[in-house]
Amino acid sequence: MTDIEKVNQFSAAHFDVSISPNGRSFAIPDEHAIAREAATILSEAARQRSFGRKIVVVQGLGFVGTAVAAVIAAARDARGEPRYFVVGVDLPSPSSFWKIALINEAVVPFPSPDPDFENLIREAVQQTGNLRATASQLAYEWADFIVIDVNLDAAERIVMTPSDINVDMDGLQRAVRVIGQRMQPGALVLVETTVPVGACEHVVEPLLRAERARRGITQSLKLAHSYERVMPGPQYVDSIRHFWRSYSGVDAASADAAEEFLSSFIDTHSRPLCRLDRPVATELAKLLENSYRAVNIAFMHEWTLLAEQVEVNLFDIVESIRVRKGTHDNMRHPGFGVGGYCLTKDSYLAQWGAKHLFNVEVTLEMTLAALRINYLMPRHTFNLLNNTLGGQMKGVQVAVLGVSYLPEVGDTRNSPTELLVDDLSSAGAIVALHDPLVKYWRERPDVMISEDLETVLRKANAIVLAVPHNSYRALSADRLMELAPKARAVVDAQNMLSDASAQTLVAMGRRVVGVGKGHWRRRGYHLGKQL
Amino acid sequence: MTDIEKVNQFSAAHFDVSISPNGRSFAIPDEHAIAREAATILSEAARQRSFGRKIVVVQGLGFVGTAVAAVIAAARDARGEPRYFVVGVDLPSPSSFWKIALINEAVVPFPSPDPDFENLIREAVQQTGNLRATASQLAYEWADFIVIDVNLDAAERIVMTPSDINVDMDGLQRAVRVIGQRMQPGALVLVETTVPVGACEHVVEPLLRAERARRGITQSLKLAHSYERVMPGPQYVDSIRHFWRSYSGVDAASADAAEEFLSSFIDTHSRPLCRLDRPVATELAKLLENSYRAVNIAFMHEWTLLAEQVEVNLFDIVESIRVRKGTHDNMRHPGFGVGGYCLTKDSYLAQWGAKHLFNVEVTLEMTLAALRINYLMPRHTFNLLNNTLGGQMKGVQVAVLGVSYLPEVGDTRNSPTELLVDDLSSAGAIVALHDPLVKYWRERPDVMISEDLETVLRKANAIVLAVPHNSYRALSADRLMELAPKARAVVDAQNMLSDASAQTLVAMGRRVVGVGKGHWRRRGYHLGKQL
Repeated sequence: MTDIEKVNQFSAAHFDVSISPNGRSFAIPDEHAIAREAATILSEAARQRSFGRKIVVVQGLGFVGTAVAAVIAAARDARGEPRYFVVGVDLPSPSSFWKIALINEAVVPFPSPDPDFENLIREAVQQTGNLRATASQLAYEWADFIVIDVNLDAAERIVMTPSDINVDMDGLQRAVRVIGQRMQPGALVLVETTVPVGACEHVVEPLLRAERARRGITQSLKLAHSYERVMPGPQYVDSIRHFWRSYSGVDAASADAAEEFLSSFIDTHSRPLCRLDRPVATELAKLLENSYRAVNIAFMHEWTLLAEQVEVNLFDIVESIRVRKGTHDNMRHPGFGVGGYCLTKDSYLAQWGAKHLFNVEVTLEMTLAALRINYLMPRHTFNLLNNTLGGQMKGVQVAVLGVSYLPEVGDTRNSPTELLVDDLSSAGAIVALHDPLVKYWRERPDVMISEDLETVLRKANAIVLAVPHNSYRALSADRLMELAPKARAVVDAQNMLSDASAQTLVAMGRRVVGVGKGHWRRRGYHLGKQL
Repeated sequence: MTDIEKVNQFSAAHFDVSISPNGRSFAIPDEHAIAREAATILSEAARQRSFGRKIVVVQGLGFVGTAVAAVIAAARDARGEPRYFVVGVDLPSPSSFWKIALINEAVVPFPSPDPDFENLIREAVQQTGNLRATASQLAYEWADFIVIDVNLDAAERIVMTPSDINVDMDGLQRAVRVIGQRMQPGALVLVETTVPVGACEHVVEPLLRAERARRGITQSLKLAHSYERVMPGPQYVDSIRHFWRSYSGVDAASADAAEEFLSSFIDTHSRPLCRLDRPVATELAKLLENSYRAVNIAFMHEWTLLAEQVEVNLFDIVESIRVRKGTHDNMRHPGFGVGGYCLTKDSYLAQWGAKHLFNVEVTLEMTLAALRINYLMPRHTFNLLNNTLGGQMKGVQVAVLGVSYLPEVGDTRNSPTELLVDDLSSAGAIVALHDPLVKYWRERPDVMISEDLETVLRKANAIVLAVPHNSYRALSADRLMELAPKARAVVDAQNMLSDASAQTLVAMGRRVVGVGKGHWRRRGYHLGKQL
């Protein structure tokens, strides 16, 4: 993307245009156009219903909703026929409409390394014709099943006390109210969005009941919660279809309906469903599950600092401990930081829900400390570089390799590279960024990402290996130094360099330092001399 | 044990008598008697050496040393003959001599649910005659291998800042100095004791070198570290023989020697050894490994408090998450507290070593918070009872079932029951304790433990189920209430009562509350009424 394209994209937020991450621009249709298109979808829905297909509406076409819609559309009955006609709904806004447009073109809206995802979307849109996307809320009126996958976020990434946590429930409330206003009385509403503990029973259920009461509906409400465990990456589709699911309902009938629905598109033979008592239980399970990972990462970070100081290789140590299957084999390795949409905020939803939806005074002390530690992790990588350069960062050209928050995935949400870039800039360094999978940094449109690794490295006085993309791992020490003749220091934040590579770099007169690589320090690599 | 026997035992510390946990009393021999006995052992050692057996001396006959000595004595060569003559050494003190005396009678000094342990000791002492115990330091003079298994502890169980941590290195230093003064120049010294990070290189090695230099020894020192993962319990012996081991040496020759020695008595075919870079690495690995468990327990405790308040069953939730093998299957359940010798102090050894042996300023924030949370866990059980009784604890007779820190093991070291008893006593309750495996509470000789469950329960106004011994699990709700007609409240700290049992108790008019059992609260069980 050229700079002019970026400026266009940046300003698109103020016009009726929606631009996708890969640079496609779509005019946002007006109300009438949306209604006209909805009419054609609804008549198709009616036709498909006449074959016995049920109608599923998925609300929210993000990383989860789009994949869930594709998997549901792929569900087949005993005769091999699609079970459902699936309609994905999102907003006619600059930040969302492109997803609708791309899905209707049979294109996966997010860059995904899982070919299954593309295949499912293509088949459902082009062959079976049982997947459509729309900005119209009319879709809810025909649905037998409504799956809520809207976004719900905490405003702050770092908090000092529980009262600093700020969760905006407005989006969810608006989304739920629309459903209550339009849903069939007997439709099942299945919440998949990760929500604060208590949200289904204390927010969603009362809103739906109120809207239904206003419509004079007396039939009992079917409301369930089942959280997804989607992992964008090479197993994207499998992480929905062939993975464990827990669910709960506000009553037995709701739970039964959810069980039947989930069983129709998830492989529950190899991964039996797990029913929990009530929505609070499944909500808490999701938040606990991700908090557990967050805590285990933060725990490892403080031992990383110790291991570096006492000059041992923490990666080897962790491997030696992980042989203890079932108790220690999920111990994390040292690393650069934590990004993404889940581990950075789910714990806040638990703490916020406890306070605001239950009015209880519990403080998740370790859990909140973990999110603070994880947020600040990239600062340690900055410190390593800064110390290696003797605190002289002013005017130093630093090449940062990697902007996404996961290797081989082009997802930049809450990327730890963000804090590193800010710290480097504050210290006066000149930062050049590269990522093979990220052309445009949605969260930081002010920061340029180069597509040309050679240009980025040619000028670099220092290199930070931030994300272990395969293409970076493939670089030998010799090749790296050939590309970066001026680089005096290399910081390996993600165990990308072998001991032999580090040794080679030192032999070339470079300083090398690595997160969790205390033994390099012992060998004097960071001082640019060999053992 | 009668009260008079307890008084005897208590005062024995001031006389030349050593009393075992099962009440046997042994006169502590004088210097001359020790030397005479040592002479017979050494002549036996010489005889066994003439068959080609090597001499192993194990220093410290605690839970680890005794078991390690037994396993080494059981090692066989290709012809099925014992590889080693093993001598266990401990001090001729009231607190230790009984171990020497019992081993020489072919008796396992600690109550152990693993019959293998008894069999190994009996065979080695009575049949092959290749295991003896002594209080004489002469044993070190003959050793080819010296295994250090002495005790090393942190003084405080709860600290607010790293500088509060107090580790007494005197015992280890004295033990090492004796070895340096007497060891064969070429013997391998293998440290198994869990030590502060840096202890081998900064304490043990300099001491050995100094003592050896004083003796004019120029041969290079063979010093290695390999930490045990002993689990007293039904797999006691297997936790040494058929389990993973990491090791390291101060140089390659030391590491090679340790590898050969460990391979001679550990099943390294199914569990290959793991060599780490240097003793600091294996020391840190052990402390990290146990800190990981401690942190995961503390993490679960804070979510326990939340789950109770939002009225869900956290046990079910944890089970629903543990299906995620390899990432979440080691998630801990809610519980009563953390005891034993490792998880309560190992983290302190890391923090202390960093500061005192490396002079680095790292603070293990989450790890230290975890030990604080874990130490205070039993207070939550007290609070549950106290709240259930409306804060009226004065004069209430409370039966606490369980004193050991693990089910089916009679080990009371740092038992969480200790804090519970103190909190109950401070609140004015009258505490009666029962444990089927603990007759005498070594750490709290002032507190009586009854052997008679019926007597303890007959008077009880409230019951705390603290340790899930099988015999407690076997009690039905009906039987429990038959035994405890006056009990108004039952607190289940360890998931011992099923929902049905809780319901039965409530139907009988009792109040029931459980750690992690928020759903009981929702059902009103704690108020003594049914849903």
